[in-house]
Amino acid sequence: MNDNRTRIRLFVDYDLEQGCAVPATQDQHNYLRRVMRRKDGDTVALFNGRQGEWRASIAYESKSRCMMVVHQTLRPQRTPPDVWLLFAPVKATPMNNIARMSTELGVGRICPVLTEHTNVARVNTARLRVNAVEAAEQSTRLNIPIVEEPVRFADLLKDWDPARRIILCAEAGQAEPVPDALSQISPGGPWAVMTGPEGGFSESELDGMAKLPFVTAVRLGPRILRADTAAAAVLVCWQNHLGDWSE
Amino acid sequence: MNDNRTRIRLFVDYDLEQGCAVPATQDQHNYLRRVMRRKDGDTVALFNGRQGEWRASIAYESKSRCMMVVHQTLRPQRTPPDVWLLFAPVKATPMNNIARMSTELGVGRICPVLTEHTNVARVNTARLRVNAVEAAEQSTRLNIPIVEEPVRFADLLKDWDPARRIILCAEAGQAEPVPDALSQISPGGPWAVMTGPEGGFSESELDGMAKLPFVTAVRLGPRILRADTAAAAVLVCWQNHLGDWSE
Repeated sequence: MNDNRTRIRLFVDYDLEQGCAVPATQDQHNYLRRVMRRKDGDTVALFNGRQGEWRASIAYESKSRCMMVVHQTLRPQRTPPDVWLLFAPVKATPMNNIARMSTELGVGRICPVLTEHTNVARVNTARLRVNAVEAAEQSTRLNIPIVEEPVRFADLLKDWDPARRIILCAEAGQAEPVPDALSQISPGGPWAVMTGPEGGFSESELDGMAKLPFVTAVRLGPRILRADTAAAAVLVCWQNHLGDWSE
Repeated sequence: MNDNRTRIRLFVDYDLEQGCAVPATQDQHNYLRRVMRRKDGDTVALFNGRQGEWRASIAYESKSRCMMVVHQTLRPQRTPPDVWLLFAPVKATPMNNIARMSTELGVGRICPVLTEHTNVARVNTARLRVNAVEAAEQSTRLNIPIVEEPVRFADLLKDWDPARRIILCAEAGQAEPVPDALSQISPGGPWAVMTGPEGGFSESELDGMAKLPFVTAVRLGPRILRADTAAAAVLVCWQNHLGDWSE
């Protein structure tokens, strides 16, 4: 038993049921064997986003390969609140922070949106996915948020389901304070929160969004927040008022 | 005029009044001249934490020296809400994130607290201060949070003013949900928020704190948050319910 050690949780893309054996990826094998120094028979927790969390034991097959043998269910799958993050890409470090923190904060989908003032040429979505998987493993989530490829702002709302309401984070002074705006909204239904790039949204972007009946523009306090802080902050507000933080 | 360029704000430790000239530090000089390529006569905004924000113009005196000549007041000093952050030190990257994000989120004092499960030998408070100053400059704050030297948990409450209430972030399951706890509290008075190390507070630490009449234990949702996310999250909650985000 590993009771005094850090509990290891791994996301696997395999069906999970009692008795099945799941092969560890090369990265997972290295992590178990070399980083965490786990031995044959030590236990880990596995989840696949569909079938809850399971206890499994490690079975090393060679110096570079191991299986994880599933033997007991730990938690049933549950559906988290339905909130997406739409964000303007920023530099790599804050962008990876955004993927990590928004995953910890329970987001279901992470969507980079190229706005007028977006100043980043390339979005490493593979890296964002790695950050999201690690954050899901560490935060005890039972699923992984979907990381989308970047879309242009003009294309974002083309096929948008108007039932999915959007909380838009505008610069200080241009919108209602977030606690006041959220206190007027009843929980339920699908949602997205949206944050802008350094320099904010353009006036035409803000005007276009403000006209839409499913968009609520808010401001996040009197100080300017960096992109990663803003994304975390609006998700914290959402989880407090409309999500699962009251449960 | 620099209307189309990023507005530069600098913290200076000098009195500010119309007509005075403030010497730039070596770092500030390099930033103005080499990073931001500002020319003689270009304007910057200055603040010192006491006398509001002032417009000043750059006067280069040599390749390595410049003065900033103060010529117009921009904003009067205002007193931000009174909230401190008590946090258990973590590794350098998340700890610097904590200093930066908590500054953006309006904290007045940043206090590292060495708890039982704290696993970090050294706290680079000079580096935390640099992060706090940069974040204050960029977030349009008019003051800089004070960064304290680390104290041991056992010493923290020795001279604690019981009028300064504490919101203690406990692990999921051990305390009231943060929105419910905060909705029962009226704004006003001095506050602190407190977050634990990886692995959380010890049972005796939690028990000791829970007995104190000025401590409210809360939990930040059903997922486990990393230390920097937790510090940002509880400050966002505090600013929403008790701070200046409703203004």
